[in-house]
Amino acid sequence: MAADDNVVVLCGGVGAARLLQGLVQVVPSSRLTAIVNVGDDLNLHGLHISPDIDTIVYTLAGQVSAERGWGLTNESWNAMETLQRYGGQAWFGLGDKDLGTHLYRTQRLTEGASLAEVTSEIAAAWNLPLTVLPATNDTVRTIVETENQGDLSFQQYFVGHRHEVQTTGVRFEGAASATALPAALASIHSADLLIIAPSNPVVSIDPILAIPEIADAVKQRRDITCAVSPIVGGAALKGPAARLMVENGGEASVAGVADWYHDYCSTLVFDEVDVDHSSAVAEYGLTPVVTDTIMSNKTKAAGLAAALLSRIRSED
Amino acid sequence: MAADDNVVVLCGGVGAARLLQGLVQVVPSSRLTAIVNVGDDLNLHGLHISPDIDTIVYTLAGQVSAERGWGLTNESWNAMETLQRYGGQAWFGLGDKDLGTHLYRTQRLTEGASLAEVTSEIAAAWNLPLTVLPATNDTVRTIVETENQGDLSFQQYFVGHRHEVQTTGVRFEGAASATALPAALASIHSADLLIIAPSNPVVSIDPILAIPEIADAVKQRRDITCAVSPIVGGAALKGPAARLMVENGGEASVAGVADWYHDYCSTLVFDEVDVDHSSAVAEYGLTPVVTDTIMSNKTKAAGLAAALLSRIRSED
Repeated sequence: MAADDNVVVLCGGVGAARLLQGLVQVVPSSRLTAIVNVGDDLNLHGLHISPDIDTIVYTLAGQVSAERGWGLTNESWNAMETLQRYGGQAWFGLGDKDLGTHLYRTQRLTEGASLAEVTSEIAAAWNLPLTVLPATNDTVRTIVETENQGDLSFQQYFVGHRHEVQTTGVRFEGAASATALPAALASIHSADLLIIAPSNPVVSIDPILAIPEIADAVKQRRDITCAVSPIVGGAALKGPAARLMVENGGEASVAGVADWYHDYCSTLVFDEVDVDHSSAVAEYGLTPVVTDTIMSNKTKAAGLAAALLSRIRSED
Repeated sequence: MAADDNVVVLCGGVGAARLLQGLVQVVPSSRLTAIVNVGDDLNLHGLHISPDIDTIVYTLAGQVSAERGWGLTNESWNAMETLQRYGGQAWFGLGDKDLGTHLYRTQRLTEGASLAEVTSEIAAAWNLPLTVLPATNDTVRTIVETENQGDLSFQQYFVGHRHEVQTTGVRFEGAASATALPAALASIHSADLLIIAPSNPVVSIDPILAIPEIADAVKQRRDITCAVSPIVGGAALKGPAARLMVENGGEASVAGVADWYHDYCSTLVFDEVDVDHSSAVAEYGLTPVVTDTIMSNKTKAAGLAAALLSRIRSED
């Protein structure tokens, strides 16, 4: 890539954060932008919580809890202990240090700041080596429709029920009428490489693409857009991506990911174990790129990042 | 007193909590009710914080920080540390354990519970040996008018400016149209002894009495109402009571307290050091009761409580 190439990533939480950890090693800070899902944001205890943004910020700040994959390291849980005394809603874990982020965000939103402004302030406070943008300042909420529990907010599904319930559909409330963040749209338009992170297609990437302006912008840039498959060997490395894809009419495979994203990207990067899916991927009109996609450490994440950047070079 | 005598106390924070610590030693739990000021409640970081209620709950639970006089003992401050990283509003100290209370209260209010219901739930969780009632479920906010800083919320004045600014007046927004808590009114009507705690008359007791139904009810029970002077030897033991009384047209003395409360009570209990104010107190139509009012420990608090209860006996 050239030093002034712009790299933009559509992001959920943990998987995207790992990829960004690789990208920051090979892309100049001023050229790297993360557009982050807000569909799993929630209001709880009066606080505005943005789990995907926080996972990305904490991970890139080098402060994420390695054991949990979310929240801050060296965390204490004293507020939750008090909450439990009262029989409060303790199903959603909020560490004490982490709470400071939610207090700050909520107060700033109350004062009239936008989610993008607050996110920028929080990222700056952690000296993040990239730009972090919410997909929209508007409220988008992922609702998971289930067989036996009715409609669940994403976090009720994911954390409250540990994604162990049968789903019948997913919808993104507010998305159709949401205004995309102008800076996010601008970054997509000026991207030299647009990456769909190996996040959950159904509940992390789709809520971003459910915002019409973003879907249109990404489709316009299909030629420079690469998706990284979150499915490896027919399963998700973490979380309910495989199950949700199947329950929502897809297939839990690299070919299934190609099917899911083929309107949005022209390249699909997937793991060596799935090399036999190459022709299926090509049948969806996508260029198959086979590489080691398991980001078990930062060096391997940088390797995947470099493989993605080579897509720019190869088109020079 | 008889075992079925009802004792009701109008309360601010720290001073009232100490008196209640004495009263619980000599009054059966089912007979003791605290009606607590909500004028210094605040919304910060999206949370509903009720400082006077919390001070009373934590003190009676034996969990208040002895050094600070507010908040919980063995507290950690990790959320505040994160908040400070962002340059957030860290002027109002919120310990991690304490935050759990505000999270719970805010969530329950969001769900539609009243402040009285939440307060009752919180008090029950700490096994409190008395009934704690907010004066109203409605919003009452004490606004301190200042010479150079304009209008300040009570906590901005008290904590933010450490009550070191010249005030020109105090008002209680929402009080005139607030509905008194029915249980609070009922307790006043059925009280055998109604006590005005040695709290700040200007900003702790007056915001309760600014609710018209409560003022009327207390005036109707003037004959069984005793105030305990928060002024000892011309000064407040703690906080800005003396200064605020003077700045609001009163006098920082036991006679000044008699003047302040004479419509509401028929007895004023004050400290031995002020024995020479007895005739001045009598001139306001109040029965002077001189005793040791310095509650430096629980035994002394019980002594003051017993002196107050003897007011019931003396009228039998």
